[in-house]
Amino acid sequence: MRGPAENAELALLLEVAGTPKPGNVDRERDFPGLRFEHFLAGAVGARTGLRAAAEGAPVGESFERAVAGMAEQSGGNTQFGALLLLVPLVAAAGQGRLSPDRAAAVAEGTTIADATGFYRAFDHVDVFVSDPPADMADLDVRRGSGAIPALEERGLTLYDVMERSAPGDGDGAEWVSGFPQSFETGRRIADDDGPVPDRAARAFLALLAEEPDTLVVKQHGRDVAADVADRASELLDADRDTDGTDGTGTGWDRTAVSAFGDDLVARGVNPGTTADVVAAGLFVALERHGVVV
Amino acid sequence: MRGPAENAELALLLEVAGTPKPGNVDRERDFPGLRFEHFLAGAVGARTGLRAAAEGAPVGESFERAVAGMAEQSGGNTQFGALLLLVPLVAAAGQGRLSPDRAAAVAEGTTIADATGFYRAFDHVDVFVSDPPADMADLDVRRGSGAIPALEERGLTLYDVMERSAPGDGDGAEWVSGFPQSFETGRRIADDDGPVPDRAARAFLALLAEEPDTLVVKQHGRDVAADVADRASELLDADRDTDGTDGTGTGWDRTAVSAFGDDLVARGVNPGTTADVVAAGLFVALERHGVVV
Repeated sequence: MRGPAENAELALLLEVAGTPKPGNVDRERDFPGLRFEHFLAGAVGARTGLRAAAEGAPVGESFERAVAGMAEQSGGNTQFGALLLLVPLVAAAGQGRLSPDRAAAVAEGTTIADATGFYRAFDHVDVFVSDPPADMADLDVRRGSGAIPALEERGLTLYDVMERSAPGDGDGAEWVSGFPQSFETGRRIADDDGPVPDRAARAFLALLAEEPDTLVVKQHGRDVAADVADRASELLDADRDTDGTDGTGTGWDRTAVSAFGDDLVARGVNPGTTADVVAAGLFVALERHGVVV
Repeated sequence: MRGPAENAELALLLEVAGTPKPGNVDRERDFPGLRFEHFLAGAVGARTGLRAAAEGAPVGESFERAVAGMAEQSGGNTQFGALLLLVPLVAAAGQGRLSPDRAAAVAEGTTIADATGFYRAFDHVDVFVSDPPADMADLDVRRGSGAIPALEERGLTLYDVMERSAPGDGDGAEWVSGFPQSFETGRRIADDDGPVPDRAARAFLALLAEEPDTLVVKQHGRDVAADVADRASELLDADRDTDGTDGTGTGWDRTAVSAFGDDLVARGVNPGTTADVVAAGLFVALERHGVVV
């Protein structure tokens, strides 16, 4: 039987296999220098840290190990955000049946040492983040382990750090609210049918339509993110209006979705946080709902 | 650092990601009921057995565990043959730098108990095999663990079993000759350049052209297998003649290769043993030659 670490790795693989996921690397799309196989190697490399989380190692240390393993490929950051969601979920699943309560308890139970592990993870890979507020400059995650003294002086746990990033960061928001989107996405994938990567792609577009992607907000501003959400919504509506499928297994106008993806890529718009939530949702689907691949 | 088990799992993933691999599931092709994601789950599930092999567990037991984990998906047999090559290679790599001598010694050092593990592996998944010769009927692998008493009575090691299957089975031939194609393919992939899955696809077509695939021989006869090899050879020659690339990164006429694949699929011709050797070659490339993904 696959345990939580195995299911989490498989979730990462199914996430990148799910296509179309406009604006992201997927089974049908590579970016220059960031290709499909980098995500495969990232998922394989992450498993040791995921296993540590499942076996009860501290969340911060497990996360750092997962990121260090993920980074053993030449593409750069592939799954940092996805691992930030997966590690507490895997830790929760390691304690018993995965549930929102267990996941919330893991997040709320993190320590200052967990926060230092999180900061150390930034030493292994370049991650896009926004400038912190002025009163948080000494805690800029881009300082990596260099920020640890300030972190310890302030006495912040990993939960505290996530709370401070939550207003503008979808992964942080998940952390401080019991991972609601992750669990809802898991339910959505479990209730859907057909091949699991197709379900992941449908969940991705639905999430993208529901709420502006916070990575897009950080990189391109609120207006662009809102426009992306609107366009995702139109593509979903078009499908609903016609009640049709073009036979490709997704129920959408693949040409329109593909053109949307081309446009996002051309503009460098990468809804990466939405992909993080889909990976977390896939894990919930496998681990909590027993979805079979 | 990824160890041998991690590199073997990654090799399985890179193998199925490599496209085009005519007649096989790959990044661009699913079969009905046997899809890309089944190979992803198969690779994830195999890792526990691969790790056992790397840590010095008996080859037969490790192989059975790898196959049992691989089989935890709904597609059926995805990587049985690839694991049959990978497990001894991983065991060899677990002892020191991977070399043909070490791999040959692992194969030659197998025991009767290893043979029983190999037979037990057939209990976990349906594998296509030919009818055995009349004097081997009691050792038909399709009997799975039911054949173990006969196996023990005859005192056959796993190497002995492979020796008996070698004449018509490419994986068996690798086992009893120091895994020459696996090591050559690893060298070929290491000497090639570009994205690793593209190198895997090129190695696949080259292997297919060099020697008839033994799974195709078993399922469709020598003439079909020879014809497949001839056509693969023509596709390679066409590329050499024009010295050209259509810009897709493989250097071939993708349309012609794709049509070749369509034809193989339509006729149910699956050069699966060639894919096994490519997976083994990818492992050699990662583990012995330090190829970076």
